[in-house]
Amino acid sequence: MSGKILVINGPNLNLLGIREPDVYGAETLDDIETQCRSQADALGLEMDFRQSNTEGELVNWVQEARGVFDVLIINAGAYTHTSVALLDALKAVDLPTFEVHLSNIHQREEFRRHSYVSKVALGMICGFGSFGYDMAIQAAARLVKK
Amino acid sequence: MSGKILVINGPNLNLLGIREPDVYGAETLDDIETQCRSQADALGLEMDFRQSNTEGELVNWVQEARGVFDVLIINAGAYTHTSVALLDALKAVDLPTFEVHLSNIHQREEFRRHSYVSKVALGMICGFGSFGYDMAIQAAARLVKK
Amino acid sequence: MSGKILVINGPNLNLLGIREPDVYGAETLDDIETQCRSQADALGLEMDFRQSNTEGELVNWVQEARGVFDVLIINAGAYTHTSVALLDALKAVDLPTFEVHLSNIHQREEFRRHSYVSKVALGMICGFGSFGYDMAIQAAARLVKK
Amino acid sequence: MSGKILVINGPNLNLLGIREPDVYGAETLDDIETQCRSQADALGLEMDFRQSNTEGELVNWVQEARGVFDVLIINAGAYTHTSVALLDALKAVDLPTFEVHLSNIHQREEFRRHSYVSKVALGMICGFGSFGYDMAIQAAARLVKK
Amino acid sequence: MSGKILVINGPNLNLLGIREPDVYGAETLDDIETQCRSQADALGLEMDFRQSNTEGELVNWVQEARGVFDVLIINAGAYTHTSVALLDALKAVDLPTFEVHLSNIHQREEFRRHSYVSKVALGMICGFGSFGYDMAIQAAARLVKK
Amino acid sequence: MSGKILVINGPNLNLLGIREPDVYGAETLDDIETQCRSQADALGLEMDFRQSNTEGELVNWVQEARGVFDVLIINAGAYTHTSVALLDALKAVDLPTFEVHLSNIHQREEFRRHSYVSKVALGMICGFGSFGYDMAIQAAARLVKK
Amino acid sequence: MSGKILVINGPNLNLLGIREPDVYGAETLDDIETQCRSQADALGLEMDFRQSNTEGELVNWVQEARGVFDVLIINAGAYTHTSVALLDALKAVDLPTFEVHLSNIHQREEFRRHSYVSKVALGMICGFGSFGYDMAIQAAARLVKK
Amino acid sequence: MSGKILVINGPNLNLLGIREPDVYGAETLDDIETQCRSQADALGLEMDFRQSNTEGELVNWVQEARGVFDVLIINAGAYTHTSVALLDALKAVDLPTFEVHLSNIHQREEFRRHSYVSKVALGMICGFGSFGYDMAIQAAARLVKK
Amino acid sequence: MSGKILVINGPNLNLLGIREPDVYGAETLDDIETQCRSQADALGLEMDFRQSNTEGELVNWVQEARGVFDVLIINAGAYTHTSVALLDALKAVDLPTFEVHLSNIHQREEFRRHSYVSKVALGMICGFGSFGYDMAIQAAARLVKK
Amino acid sequence: MSGKILVINGPNLNLLGIREPDVYGAETLDDIETQCRSQADALGLEMDFRQSNTEGELVNWVQEARGVFDVLIINAGAYTHTSVALLDALKAVDLPTFEVHLSNIHQREEFRRHSYVSKVALGMICGFGSFGYDMAIQAAARLVKK
Amino acid sequence: MSGKILVINGPNLNLLGIREPDVYGAETLDDIETQCRSQADALGLEMDFRQSNTEGELVNWVQEARGVFDVLIINAGAYTHTSVALLDALKAVDLPTFEVHLSNIHQREEFRRHSYVSKVALGMICGFGSFGYDMAIQAAARLVKK
Amino acid sequence: MSGKILVINGPNLNLLGIREPDVYGAETLDDIETQCRSQADALGLEMDFRQSNTEGELVNWVQEARGVFDVLIINAGAYTHTSVALLDALKAVDLPTFEVHLSNIHQREEFRRHSYVSKVALGMICGFGSFGYDMAIQAAARLVKK
Repeated sequence: MSGKILVINGPNLNLLGIREPDVYGAETLDDIETQCRSQADALGLEMDFRQSNTEGELVNWVQEARGVFDVLIINAGAYTHTSVALLDALKAVDLPTFEVHLSNIHQREEFRRHSYVSKVALGMICGFGSFGYDMAIQAAARLVKK
Repeated sequence: MSGKILVINGPNLNLLGIREPDVYGAETLDDIETQCRSQADALGLEMDFRQSNTEGELVNWVQEARGVFDVLIINAGAYTHTSVALLDALKAVDLPTFEVHLSNIHQREEFRRHSYVSKVALGMICGFGSFGYDMAIQAAARLVKK
Repeated sequence: MSGKILVINGPNLNLLGIREPDVYGAETLDDIETQCRSQADALGLEMDFRQSNTEGELVNWVQEARGVFDVLIINAGAYTHTSVALLDALKAVDLPTFEVHLSNIHQREEFRRHSYVSKVALGMICGFGSFGYDMAIQAAARLVKK
Repeated sequence: MSGKILVINGPNLNLLGIREPDVYGAETLDDIETQCRSQADALGLEMDFRQSNTEGELVNWVQEARGVFDVLIINAGAYTHTSVALLDALKAVDLPTFEVHLSNIHQREEFRRHSYVSKVALGMICGFGSFGYDMAIQAAARLVKK
Repeated sequence: MSGKILVINGPNLNLLGIREPDVYGAETLDDIETQCRSQADALGLEMDFRQSNTEGELVNWVQEARGVFDVLIINAGAYTHTSVALLDALKAVDLPTFEVHLSNIHQREEFRRHSYVSKVALGMICGFGSFGYDMAIQAAARLVKK
Repeated sequence: MSGKILVINGPNLNLLGIREPDVYGAETLDDIETQCRSQADALGLEMDFRQSNTEGELVNWVQEARGVFDVLIINAGAYTHTSVALLDALKAVDLPTFEVHLSNIHQREEFRRHSYVSKVALGMICGFGSFGYDMAIQAAARLVKK
Repeated sequence: MSGKILVINGPNLNLLGIREPDVYGAETLDDIETQCRSQADALGLEMDFRQSNTEGELVNWVQEARGVFDVLIINAGAYTHTSVALLDALKAVDLPTFEVHLSNIHQREEFRRHSYVSKVALGMICGFGSFGYDMAIQAAARLVKK
Repeated sequence: MSGKILVINGPNLNLLGIREPDVYGAETLDDIETQCRSQADALGLEMDFRQSNTEGELVNWVQEARGVFDVLIINAGAYTHTSVALLDALKAVDLPTFEVHLSNIHQREEFRRHSYVSKVALGMICGFGSFGYDMAIQAAARLVKK
Repeated sequence: MSGKILVINGPNLNLLGIREPDVYGAETLDDIETQCRSQADALGLEMDFRQSNTEGELVNWVQEARGVFDVLIINAGAYTHTSVALLDALKAVDLPTFEVHLSNIHQREEFRRHSYVSKVALGMICGFGSFGYDMAIQAAARLVKK
Repeated sequence: MSGKILVINGPNLNLLGIREPDVYGAETLDDIETQCRSQADALGLEMDFRQSNTEGELVNWVQEARGVFDVLIINAGAYTHTSVALLDALKAVDLPTFEVHLSNIHQREEFRRHSYVSKVALGMICGFGSFGYDMAIQAAARLVKK
Repeated sequence: MSGKILVINGPNLNLLGIREPDVYGAETLDDIETQCRSQADALGLEMDFRQSNTEGELVNWVQEARGVFDVLIINAGAYTHTSVALLDALKAVDLPTFEVHLSNIHQREEFRRHSYVSKVALGMICGFGSFGYDMAIQAAARLVKK
Repeated sequence: MSGKILVINGPNLNLLGIREPDVYGAETLDDIETQCRSQADALGLEMDFRQSNTEGELVNWVQEARGVFDVLIINAGAYTHTSVALLDALKAVDLPTFEVHLSNIHQREEFRRHSYVSKVALGMICGFGSFGYDMAIQAAARLVKK
C-alpha cells in the first residue's frame, strides 16, 4: 500500500545553509528535500514538500491536506512559537502529525521552548539536524502501514 | 435609513462544521452567512461577509472598511489572541465593533482567554454558537438607527 | 410551550443610573426590569427579576431555582469576580445559565476580567448595556423552544 | 562611495495621519517617504521605502535584502512585538539594522514594550516622530562610510 | 467529662446528594448530621450541627462559639478559599478547630487548593467523604479528654 | 455648619479587646465608639457608628449613606482585602472616604497588604490603634468646614 | 475477610522524637508502629510498616505492593514535595492510597505546601500527629470491608 | 516633659508647590515646616525639620537621631520605594517612627505601592496632604507623653 | 568499526505494560530491550540496557560510561524533571546523549514539560512510543560512523 | 534664537574608554563632550555637560535646570534602572527630555531593560554609541526652533 | 580539646578534575581530601571525609553524625538545589553546619542559585575553589574552641 | 612581595555593635578594622579600610581603586541588593573582588537574597560574622602571591 505525506516548512527555512549555520547546519532546504524524497521513495511513500514565510499560507496548506494526505510532517519555524491559527488548523484537519526541529529548541531562548504545534503533534523530534526529517518519514511509514 | 455592516471571519472559520463539531457546532460558515444575511435583510442592513486565514488580509479589510461600512462584526478566530496588528487596525479605523465567538472562550485553554480585539470592541458575545452573529447584527441595527 | 426564567442581579446594580453613569449608563434597574418584562412577554416567557447585595442571598436564589425555572440570566456584579460560592451553586443546580454584564469587562481593571460565573455559563454577553439583557432573554427563549 | 538602504514599514503605518494622530502625529507615510528620500539624497544614499500589513511579506523583503542593500531601517509596527519570524529573518540576513518607532513605546501598553526586533538591531530610536527616520538614515550613512 | 462540639457547614453543602454526586457522593447533609450525632453520642460529646450560605452568618456562629463549645469542626465549602473574615473569626475565638472537606481539594481546580481555614486549623482531613466528619469527631473527643 | 459622618466597622471588629490583643490592643469597639463620639462632639459633627460581619450589610450601609452623610470613615476589616462589592458601593455613592486600620497592615501577611478600599479612599491611616479613628474624624471635620 | 496494608514512611521519619519535637511531637517511629499495629489488629488487618531515606527504595516498595497489599498508607516526608518518581509509582500500581502528615503542612514553609502524593491519594490527613495514622488505618479497614 | 521630634523629608519634596501640583498640592515645603512648627509648639515638642535629595544623607540623619530625638516622622519620597539602606538605618536606631505621604500611594503606579519604610514604621498616614504631618505630630506627642 | 551504546532507563520504566497503558503502551521494558538489541545488532553496535529507580544509581551509570561507551541514550523517566544531579553527571562525562520519551511530554502536566536532560542532550525524541528508541539508536549509529 | 541644553551623565560614565570597551567603545567622556560641544555650537545651542556618580547630585542638577535650560539630554547610566528619585525630579521640572544610552539596553541583562527615565522622556536613543548624543542634540535644536 | 568534623560531598564531586575543569578547577577530590586533612591536623581536629551520589546516603550520613561529630561541612552538589530531605536531616541533627561550593553559584544558572542547605547552615562560602574547604575547617576549629 | 587591599563597607556598617546585635553581633566596625589590620599585617598586605553610607561615594572608591589596589573586599550592606551603579563600577575596574556579609543573607528577607555584587565577585562569604573578613583577607593574600 502507498501513503501520501506532506512536509511543511515554515518561515526562513528557505534560507537554510545561509542562516546561522552554526545553529542550523550547512545543508540547504533543497538538500533536505532531496534526502526526504529518496527516503520516502525507499519506503514507498508519495511526498509533497513545501515552504512558506506566510502564516496564512501554512494554515491553508494544512487545511487542504485533509482527505489528500495521510500524514503531516511539520517544521513550522518561528510560527511554532506564536501561531494559534496553525494549531487550530492542525486540530481541525485531525491528521497524524509529526513535529520536527533542526536544533534542540529546549536549549535556545525561552520563547523558543514553547510550541503550539506540540499540543497536537503525535511526536516531536528536535536537535538531530536534517536527520530528524528522515526519522519522521520513517515514523510516517510505520503509521501508514498499520 | 440603511446601514452597512462588515462581518469579518478569521482563520479556520472556513472549516466550520468540520473542525471539532463538539466545540463549534455542525453549521458551516455558509450556513452562518445565509442566516446573517436574512437577519440583516430583515433589519434593513446591507452586509458584506468575508473570511481569511491571513492576518495581513484581515488587517487590510479592517482598514478598507473606513468610510464604507458603519459597523464591524468580527470573529477573529485564533488572531483574537495573538494579533496586535489587528488591534491597531481596529483602533485606526475607529468604527463601532462587535466581537463574536462561537464558543465561550473563558472555558477554554488559558491562551484563548485573552483577546486583543476586546480592547477596542464595544461589546463581546461568546458561547451562543451562530446565534451570536444574529445578536451582534441586532445590536448593529440598533446602533445604526441612533 | 411557556418557559420560566430567573434574572438575578448582584451587588450595587440597584444603584444603576446613579453609579458611574459614564460606565453603566443612565437607566435604572427598574427601567431594565420593565424592558426585560416586555421582551419576555413578547417571547412567551415568565420572568422573575431580583437583586441583592448579599452573596449568600444570591446563592440561595440560585439553589431555589432548581425545578422552578428553566433558564438563569445572571449579572452577578462584583461577585462575578470573587464568589466561588456562587459558582458552586450554579454548578449544583445545573440550569442553563447566561451571563450578562453592562460594560465590557475586558476593558476594565485587571481584577474585573476574571469571572467565576463564566466557568459554568453557556454564554456571556458584555458591553451592550441593558440591551445585553434583551439578547440573553432571546437566547433563553430559543433554548426553551428546543 | 554610494550605499543602499531599505526602509521597511509594518502594519497600519499606511494609515499614518489618520490613525490616532495624538499618538502618531499628522504626517502621512508619503510625507515620511519624501522626507527620507531628500535626507538620503543629501547623504548620497539610494533608498527603497516599503510598507506591508502582512508578516510574511515583511519576512520576504528582509530575506531579499541580502546582497542588495547595505543597511535596513525598520519600523515593524505591531509585528515588533509578536513576530519571531521577522526576528529570524533579520538574524539570517545579518545586515546592520536600525529600529525606529514614532512614539516612545516604553510609555505605552505593557505588550508594546517588548520588541523582537531589538534583539538584533544595532540601535533603536523611539519617540521622535518622523524625525527618527532622519536620524536612522544619518546613522546608516555614517555606517556606510566606514 | 462531656465536651461540646460545633460542626459548621458552609455554602451549598445543603445541596449534598444533589450537587455533583460524582464529586461529593450521594449522601445528604441530613445523613451526615445523623451519622455525626451517633458518633458524637457514642463518644460522649454534645454536638451542634449547622449550615449557612452566608459568609457573615458563618462568622457570627464562630464568634458565638467562644465559651460555649470546646471544639470546632468546619467544612467551610467555597468560603474556605475566599474568606479572610472567617479566618479572622477563627483566630479571634481561638478554639481548637478541625477542617474537613469531602473531596480531596488538592486534586481540584487551582483556586480550591488554597485554604484560609488551614492557617488556623489544628488539622485537616480531605477526600474521605462523610467519614472525614467521623474522624474529626474522634479527634475532638481525644482532645476533650486530655 | 454641622456635618454628619458615618463610621463603618467590618467583620470581627465587634471582638476587639478579645481578638489577638497583641495585634489589635485591649480596647473594645464600645471604647472606640465612645472616644469617637466625644471627638466628634468636640468638633461639632454628628456621628453614626456601626459594625457588621456581613459583606452585603456593609454594602447596604454605604449605599444608604448617599445624601445622608457627608463623610465616610471605614475600617472594613477582612473585607478590605476581598470585597469588590464594597469597592463598587463606595465608588457609586462617591462620598469622601477615609480608611482606617488599627494595625499597620503593611507588616502583616501578604494577603492583608492589598486594599480594595484604598482604591477610592481619599486617605488611609494605619498602625495608630484607635487613635487612627480620632485622626480620621479630625480630617473629616476639616473637610466639612471647607 | 482480612486485608493487608502497607504503611510507608519517608526520609527522616526514623528520627521522630529527636527531630524538631515542637513540630513533630515526642513519639518515636517505633511508638507509632506499635500503635498502628494494635489498631490494625483490632480491625483485623495485616500490616507491614517500613521507613527509608532513599527515594528509589520508596519507589521499589510501592511497585512491589502491587498484588500483595490492598491499601497503601504513606507519609512520604520530604519526598512528598519533590518526588515525581514516587507519584509515578503510585499511579502505576493503582492501589487505594491514603496520605498522612504529622504536622499541618499548610502552615509551614511554602515549599512544603505542595504534595505530589496528593495528586493520586484518595484522601489526606494532616496535623493530627500520630493519630493521623490511626485514622488512615480506620479508613483502610472501611475500604477493605466494602 | 518635653519631647524632640525629627521630621525628615526625602528627594524632590523641596519642589513642593512646583512639582505636579494636581498630585501634591500647592503648598511649599516651607509652608509645611511652618505649620508643623506651630503644631509642635502647641503640643510642647521640639522639632527639627530637614530635606535632602541624597539617600546617604537621609541615612546619616536617621543614624544621628539616636539618643537625640524621641520620635521620627519621615516622608522618604522616592526612597520609600527603593532604599534598603534607609530601612536598615531605621531598624538600627530603633526609634518610634511614623511614615507620612502627601498622596495616597495605593492609588498611584505599581512601583509606588511598596514601602521599605513601612516595614519598621509604627504607623502610616497617606493621602491627607500636609495635614498628614499634623496628624503624625499629634501621634508623636501622645507617644512622648506616655 | 563497532561502537558501544548505553541505554539508561529511569524510575518506573520497569513497570511498562502495567503502568497507565493508555499513556505508555502495552509493551514491556523487556520487549523494548529486545527490539533495541536487534536494531543495534543490525547496525553493528554493542548495547548495554539498564533500568533503575534510584537517582544515585543513574548518576553512577552515567559516570561509569566515560571511556566505555560512545553514545548515551537516556529515558530518565521522572528524574528528567527533577534531577540536577543527573544533569551534572551528563555534563561531566560529556558523551553524546540522545533523550527519549515514550509519550509527548509537551502534552502532559506542566511539571513534566521541563527537562534537565534536554539541557545537555544533542537531540530529543518524544511521543513515538518504543519506536523512539529505534530512532535514537539509528542516530547513534550515524554518529559513531562519522 | 539660541537655546540652552543640559547634558547629564550618570554613574561610571566618567570611566568611558576604560570600562568594558567591547560594550561601550573606546571613546572617553571628554571625547564625547568635545563632540557634543562642536555639534551644539554648529546648531547655535549653549550646552552644559556634567557627570556624577551620586544619585542625589543628579537629582539636584535636574531640579536646578528648571528655568535655566530648555532641553535635558540624559544618560543616567545605572540609575536609569533603579532611581525613582530621578524620575520624580524629571517629572517635577517638566522640561523636554531626551534619553540616550551608548549600548542597546534591550540586548543586555534583564535588569537593564527597564528604564524609569523612559517614563518621562520624549524620546529614547540607544545602541548608536556616542553618535546618539549627536542625534539627541539635533532633536533638541529642532525643538528649540519650534 | 579535640573536635571531630565530618566533611560531606554530594553527587559528581568524585569527578572533580574531570568535570568541567573551567568551572570547577583541575584538582581531584582526593587532592581536596589531602589538603583538608593536613589543615585539620594542623588545627587539631579529627576529620571524616565522604562522597556519595545518592541522596538517601547523604541523608543517612547526616543523621548518623548526631552525637559523633561536632561540626558538619557540606558541599551537597546538585542536591543543594533540590533536596528537602537533606534539609530536614540537617535540621533534625541540629549540628553547626558550614556550606561550601567550589564555584560562585550566584553566577550560574537560575536553578543553582537557590540552596536548601543555606536555610540551616551557619555560614556559606562559594567561589573560592578548594580553598573554601580550608576556610570552613578554620571556622569549624574556631567554633570547637569556644 | 607586598600587595595592597581595599576593604569597603557600605551603609549602616558604622553602627555595628549597636544595630540589631542579635543579627550582626556585638563587635564594632573599629573592632573589625583592628582585627583585619592585624590579619593583613601578618600576611604582609597593606590595607585600606573605609565605610560610607552614600552609594556614590562607594562607587567613587571602587573607581579610584584601579591601579592602586590589588584586591577589593567589599561588604556593601544594603547597596548589595539595590545598586547597579556599584556593580558597574566593579565591572569597570575589573579588580579581583571578594564579597563578605556578616549574616547568612540566604536566611533573611527575600529582598536580601539577591546580590548585584555577586555578579562580579570571585567569591562570597556570609554568615561567619567578622571572621568572614579574616577569611577574605587570607584569600586575597593567596591571590596576591600567585
